[in-house]
Amino acid sequence: MSTIGTNIEANRRYMHCPSFKSGMAQSDQSKEVPAPPFHHEPQGEVIVLPAFEGALSTPGYAELLDTRRSMRKYDEGKPMTQQELSFLLWSAQGIQFLRAHSSLRPTPSGGARHPFETYIYVRNVEGLTPGIYHYAPQANIGEKVCTIWKKSDLPNEPTITEMLVGQKWAANAPVVLFYTCVPYRAEWRYVHMAHRVMLIDLGHLGQNVMLSAAALGLGSCCMAAFDQELCDQALTIDSINEYTVYAIAAGATVQ
Amino acid sequence: MSTIGTNIEANRRYMHCPSFKSGMAQSDQSKEVPAPPFHHEPQGEVIVLPAFEGALSTPGYAELLDTRRSMRKYDEGKPMTQQELSFLLWSAQGIQFLRAHSSLRPTPSGGARHPFETYIYVRNVEGLTPGIYHYAPQANIGEKVCTIWKKSDLPNEPTITEMLVGQKWAANAPVVLFYTCVPYRAEWRYVHMAHRVMLIDLGHLGQNVMLSAAALGLGSCCMAAFDQELCDQALTIDSINEYTVYAIAAGATVQ
Repeated sequence: MSTIGTNIEANRRYMHCPSFKSGMAQSDQSKEVPAPPFHHEPQGEVIVLPAFEGALSTPGYAELLDTRRSMRKYDEGKPMTQQELSFLLWSAQGIQFLRAHSSLRPTPSGGARHPFETYIYVRNVEGLTPGIYHYAPQANIGEKVCTIWKKSDLPNEPTITEMLVGQKWAANAPVVLFYTCVPYRAEWRYVHMAHRVMLIDLGHLGQNVMLSAAALGLGSCCMAAFDQELCDQALTIDSINEYTVYAIAAGATVQ
Repeated sequence: MSTIGTNIEANRRYMHCPSFKSGMAQSDQSKEVPAPPFHHEPQGEVIVLPAFEGALSTPGYAELLDTRRSMRKYDEGKPMTQQELSFLLWSAQGIQFLRAHSSLRPTPSGGARHPFETYIYVRNVEGLTPGIYHYAPQANIGEKVCTIWKKSDLPNEPTITEMLVGQKWAANAPVVLFYTCVPYRAEWRYVHMAHRVMLIDLGHLGQNVMLSAAALGLGSCCMAAFDQELCDQALTIDSINEYTVYAIAAGATVQ
């Protein structure tokens, strides 16, 4: 294999989700080493920039940034509406328009490659039978509706909880969005530099999902830890040309 | 060095920004291989979820998602206000409150580690002498103001353009935010699993900066490509315990 091929393979592996449990047992935190400071100290004259209230043309947006918090207690009895699910899906990966080989979406992606697919674990959404669904943004370019299709029934317990490495609270959420990566879409342009960029792009879309949940009055929580092999099996993807890279729970919460 | 130590070192390197120019010359795109499809095809019955207009409690937020686009033509004559800069800084890394060893901010970070520092290339901000500044969020916990301090004068041309690998449009922006990573802050908890998580977290904060610029009526553009060695030199950081991971230009744009 060429050097480039070796680099691509190593970098694809880097994007996989490792086994968190065994890894964290080796951390300085688990050895009770004191936490490092979370900031640098100013060295020089400080300047206080003015309060920014009133500078925004979008009412409520600044409050939204305060409203969003990682929420882990979902209201099992309260379904998500289809309209709410539609907004979450579109916010992250809706296609606003096409340009050459690229799709322009509500989040930026290096080279507008958008190398992701969206799967939805639907536990409790009004009018949808529970199951794993797949979002098809290409069906509604420039429109504010979302097309989905059902891929399979829901995995049974304990599989869903194992997919989320024991985060049982997440399996109780009305929906969990699973984002997968199709690495060649970005490698086509960025070769072995694609993988670092894809992870940053993933954060862009995750932030939109979470702000959008807050705008709907819902809670959300992103999970960087999951059992990737089990997720890939549940989504019936091959772990090489496509693999799970992110999971975000969302829905109505309880206090 | 232990296996963990070797893994951490390899993963820190993985987060570094490689040389884009030579890498991209080896891409399938540069060899004129046709672009891969940007989506999977639905296989089964499709369901169209309803339009989401009207479902949001935050007026203007959905429009904001449409307004944000990567902008590369900045109005050189129009300064950014201090209030605008304040909002951009706070949106990404302001500290809303503390919990144990962690800081809670407008974006989620794995284990609330927030392993980033913010530097500001100030070219044209009202009332600030041009230079490189450093943001100190710990000075204003729970407040909506931002404290900064001047670190150095601006690098001369052609240095700033070289830092941004020839993206001259970015050097013309009123400000460029440089985000650096202090990897041990996250490794303390996540060991060799920290690095993938940090890149996703970086996307979270980048998305907030870009939406916030849109909310201020400003343009922005994130850059995953930059000359990391030159950036680290300009910010006087050591490239090992701290290194540049992201750059975002922002300011008033021209048509």
